[in-house]
Amino acid sequence: MAFLLPKGYRFAGVHCDVKPNTTKLDLSLIVSDRPATAAGVYTQNLVCGAPVQLDRLRTPGAGFRAIVVNSGVANACTGEQGFQNAETMAALTAEAIGAAQDQTLVMSTGVIGIQLPMNKIEAGIKEAASKLSSSYEHFNLAASGMMTTDTVRKTASRSLTLSNGKTIVLCGMGKGAAMIGPNMATMLVVLITDAALDPGDAQTMLKRVADETFNCISVEGHTSTSDTVLFLANGAAESSPLKDQDQELLAAALKDLCAELAQMIPNDGEGVSHLITIDVYGCKDRESAKTIAKTVANDALVKTAICGADPNWGRIVSAAGRTGVSFDPMKVSLKINGFDLYQNGTPLPFDKQTVSQSIRDNRKTHFELFFQEGEASIRFWTSDLTAEYVHLNADYTT
Amino acid sequence: MAFLLPKGYRFAGVHCDVKPNTTKLDLSLIVSDRPATAAGVYTQNLVCGAPVQLDRLRTPGAGFRAIVVNSGVANACTGEQGFQNAETMAALTAEAIGAAQDQTLVMSTGVIGIQLPMNKIEAGIKEAASKLSSSYEHFNLAASGMMTTDTVRKTASRSLTLSNGKTIVLCGMGKGAAMIGPNMATMLVVLITDAALDPGDAQTMLKRVADETFNCISVEGHTSTSDTVLFLANGAAESSPLKDQDQELLAAALKDLCAELAQMIPNDGEGVSHLITIDVYGCKDRESAKTIAKTVANDALVKTAICGADPNWGRIVSAAGRTGVSFDPMKVSLKINGFDLYQNGTPLPFDKQTVSQSIRDNRKTHFELFFQEGEASIRFWTSDLTAEYVHLNADYTT
Repeated sequence: MAFLLPKGYRFAGVHCDVKPNTTKLDLSLIVSDRPATAAGVYTQNLVCGAPVQLDRLRTPGAGFRAIVVNSGVANACTGEQGFQNAETMAALTAEAIGAAQDQTLVMSTGVIGIQLPMNKIEAGIKEAASKLSSSYEHFNLAASGMMTTDTVRKTASRSLTLSNGKTIVLCGMGKGAAMIGPNMATMLVVLITDAALDPGDAQTMLKRVADETFNCISVEGHTSTSDTVLFLANGAAESSPLKDQDQELLAAALKDLCAELAQMIPNDGEGVSHLITIDVYGCKDRESAKTIAKTVANDALVKTAICGADPNWGRIVSAAGRTGVSFDPMKVSLKINGFDLYQNGTPLPFDKQTVSQSIRDNRKTHFELFFQEGEASIRFWTSDLTAEYVHLNADYTT
Repeated sequence: MAFLLPKGYRFAGVHCDVKPNTTKLDLSLIVSDRPATAAGVYTQNLVCGAPVQLDRLRTPGAGFRAIVVNSGVANACTGEQGFQNAETMAALTAEAIGAAQDQTLVMSTGVIGIQLPMNKIEAGIKEAASKLSSSYEHFNLAASGMMTTDTVRKTASRSLTLSNGKTIVLCGMGKGAAMIGPNMATMLVVLITDAALDPGDAQTMLKRVADETFNCISVEGHTSTSDTVLFLANGAAESSPLKDQDQELLAAALKDLCAELAQMIPNDGEGVSHLITIDVYGCKDRESAKTIAKTVANDALVKTAICGADPNWGRIVSAAGRTGVSFDPMKVSLKINGFDLYQNGTPLPFDKQTVSQSIRDNRKTHFELFFQEGEASIRFWTSDLTAEYVHLNADYTT
């Protein structure tokens, strides 16, 4: 299937010297030719980057023309000066594309605690604005410009037919690959569509979808200061704001697309050798299911076991037990890669070699954890923890 | 200072073949010649080992004669059969030393999800009972018998003079060194004194002290299914239960001793190269301070940075920000090893090489994180995260 791009958007990605390596792009521009609705969801970290502070003030809203993204410096923990720099970055972008100051949004990712080199950023914005194009190649350059330690570009696309027969396109680019010194990696995602949405509808849809996709992944459980997902809807393919059934169609496509992008992040985590999918069933409520899934997902013990292809299921059950979520331990069951290992609080005999082999031979590992407390379930994605991850994150100044 | 042992206790440590390595002891017996008060604090993990379930029913109380400990198999996640085995282990111990069934307590640590080899345990208990001695050497054998992946024995001793001029002795043995396949390590500690205490007083004292010592350490944040601290007070040196000022004296000595034992655990963590002390000041309440300290302590990003001697302070501030504890980010300051790195939300210039050197050259690293929300503070201990830790925890079945 061809990778479709929505109408009315142009892209650029350049190197403007924020990153020392001149072969790495470090500034991206995503421009909508017509004013677009914008929605955003942001990090829950109390210590948040200046771009997050700025975008939070501006979204949801209408009339947006561009998103500018730099990588290499996160502009987080940078005080008053940092906020002014984020505002300046937005203003420079607006000027370069002929928009009003408040029609732009900003994202930054990279090392925290240092100020943006504004002269470089300014030059980068001008260069990017001069290179904008609606081509797939330029879309990919923009996706590359937001990467930090990512080893692969993360993009996805969907199209759908509305009830009036018109086709709309939805696509996304994202970055995120755990953390590595000197960078604190961050999840940044830009979603764009040529459908139209009212700002409130766009925000509600994005929040709901992000909660079921981007908020269900983890590499090491550290919520970055700069996590941001922005969603632009410019109406270039269909200018009437979607409602009702069409809005539901778009929401379903958005969820499907975000789930694809979301999984790419732990799968590209630093030194990762397994993508782990965790299904938790039978909880009292979604919050309980999520707490359990997230605790299992972030457990160093569980993650190192999978790295070593060790079906050490006790670590998973024990991680669930330490969450503070109440459940009957004698009604817990667990499967790994479809093998029944634990049933109603009692260990089952199993062939360790066979289960270990199934972990070792597959990039994907599947946990299914069953409780009997209610009907709520959740799916969560995480990565394993490898010695390579530690090397990458430890060896910065040494 | 000589290592003093309290009066009226005898010890043994033997190999009974629970561990395959015949040079490793795997069963310990601590016997009080006279009935002792016993208090206990236990794991908060909802999935808890059978010995924890049994001891919880029995403590606090009076009239205890022995603690039996095995290592190699944790007797956790073992269902009905596991609980019966723990009861049998207690009964066999009682029989071997000539006590009543309910005068004994049990601890187990090691791999979870498999049943105890009861024939080996029975033989071990008999052998240990035949070898009991009050010597320092036997105290050390008992301390060795509870070790799993520990590389050093963890013992400490204190003595104090009561208001009536009598001297009492307090000492402890512990084990714990993070986790390693196939074992889930566990923190087990036995504290013994020849003072006398009423059960309620012993329990209150132990709970308060554990909360400020053993509950303020972490290696990777995984609360084991079997964590247990037991405290025996047999009155062999002073038979009147301590009250008021003498009780406070004992509590202070107990806290001091437990802080010493507690730090030994992250310091002996798997593959650990740094013991990190985290002081958090100026929080609204102790719970907030603890949440922040614990989140920093368990953060893979922070721990790998210290492993690499990287003064990447942004990771510490960001970890504090993601706790959910509310604070003013513009009133946060941070020191590492006494160097001011961040003040009132703003990064300070510092010589990276000097700070890195101070981390690299010392086994101990010190974080001081200052808030301006109130008067509460806490001290917490953790270890760094090294590639060696991952190797040790991943390579079990492979």
